[in-house]
Amino acid sequence: MTAGRYVLIVAGGSGSRMKTDMPKQFLELCGFPVLMYAIRAFSRYDAAMPVTVVLPAAQTGVWEQLCKKHGFAVRHRVAEGGATRFHSVQNGLGTLPDTGWVAVHDGVRPLVSQATIEACFRDAQRYGNAIPAVPVTDTVRTLSGSGSRIVNRENLRLVQTPQVFDLKALKDAYRQDFSPLFTDDASVMERQGHIIHLTAGNEENIKITAPPDLKIAEALMNVHGNLF
Amino acid sequence: MTAGRYVLIVAGGSGSRMKTDMPKQFLELCGFPVLMYAIRAFSRYDAAMPVTVVLPAAQTGVWEQLCKKHGFAVRHRVAEGGATRFHSVQNGLGTLPDTGWVAVHDGVRPLVSQATIEACFRDAQRYGNAIPAVPVTDTVRTLSGSGSRIVNRENLRLVQTPQVFDLKALKDAYRQDFSPLFTDDASVMERQGHIIHLTAGNEENIKITAPPDLKIAEALMNVHGNLF
Repeated sequence: MTAGRYVLIVAGGSGSRMKTDMPKQFLELCGFPVLMYAIRAFSRYDAAMPVTVVLPAAQTGVWEQLCKKHGFAVRHRVAEGGATRFHSVQNGLGTLPDTGWVAVHDGVRPLVSQATIEACFRDAQRYGNAIPAVPVTDTVRTLSGSGSRIVNRENLRLVQTPQVFDLKALKDAYRQDFSPLFTDDASVMERQGHIIHLTAGNEENIKITAPPDLKIAEALMNVHGNLF
Repeated sequence: MTAGRYVLIVAGGSGSRMKTDMPKQFLELCGFPVLMYAIRAFSRYDAAMPVTVVLPAAQTGVWEQLCKKHGFAVRHRVAEGGATRFHSVQNGLGTLPDTGWVAVHDGVRPLVSQATIEACFRDAQRYGNAIPAVPVTDTVRTLSGSGSRIVNRENLRLVQTPQVFDLKALKDAYRQDFSPLFTDDASVMERQGHIIHLTAGNEENIKITAPPDLKIAEALMNVHGNLF
């Protein structure tokens, strides 16, 4: 274990976008809930790194049952989620110390690679923070008047998690007022004047937000190996 | 059949990005070459619409054999590809008349929906052209100095095919000199001053450019039904 490294896994989804009663982080991927893969990725990286999972209060009972059912033995603490992702991260940070590095990861990204986790921790120590991102391979346009115009995609990057920050800096940033423009932790830090460093992510590290994503994730696992 | 509608399917890939000897348009998806799904989508939409497939000269023999092997009976004409996508489309357009509407489609997009094809033809007749595009669901950043800054993704769209244009206007546009900035047909038209209209595409309409894409396409077909 490298001392002073923590991971905060945010799993606040209520399931409404998946058109199912089951929150998306609990849906089964190759036999196990999506969230278990996200947690497992970090325990594989460093078995001694403290893991905090942020879950809506209403879901902690179901989660306990799922862990029992699947014999899921990775030690983790559960913190209570808030009304938005911002508030969930805020609550989760409250359970962590004031020094060290924290990786904030989406509970619905089961396919983060070991290389991505390693690169983010490494670059964060070098640049102050690090978030994984991948290039855009499609042609990109922007709406403009009644039509559209082409956008140079060369400098654009699609952002993923885990996003790694200095714990004190991230806690400070999360003391500001909530804005609906905060789509991730980097946007919260940027608002405080921090320069955000981009690190190469792995393309398979997709977010499970709609039913076909589960099938895509299964297909990617079949190609890259089931990491569970 | 609606008179004056044509489809040009561009399948110029040499296979180098797929790290295989087989060009990506010929790789098998649920038992059939990817290109056959692309052609079939348009023949399902309108069985009488003339289809031209642009293929590298070196691949026409293999394609003939594949059609025989799979009993592929959709009538289509084969035109010879060029050094780049631009030159392939140029050659393909040379085989078409000067009036009507043409849908230019990537041969490696097997999952275009009937709704997307219909919407593009409909909107092209209304707005002069129409290309399908989908919103960006990831957080987007742009490289900036030594760091990055967040980009408002609200107005950004990821562009797909089929891209539908007035035949004469597209032929005129393809008479200009080649630029490496031409990533699709809309960018060629835009350079000539045309305003490009965006139409809602279907998210599953992915481009097969790397081996995992085949697995993803298979997964999506299993969800949405094998359209072959």
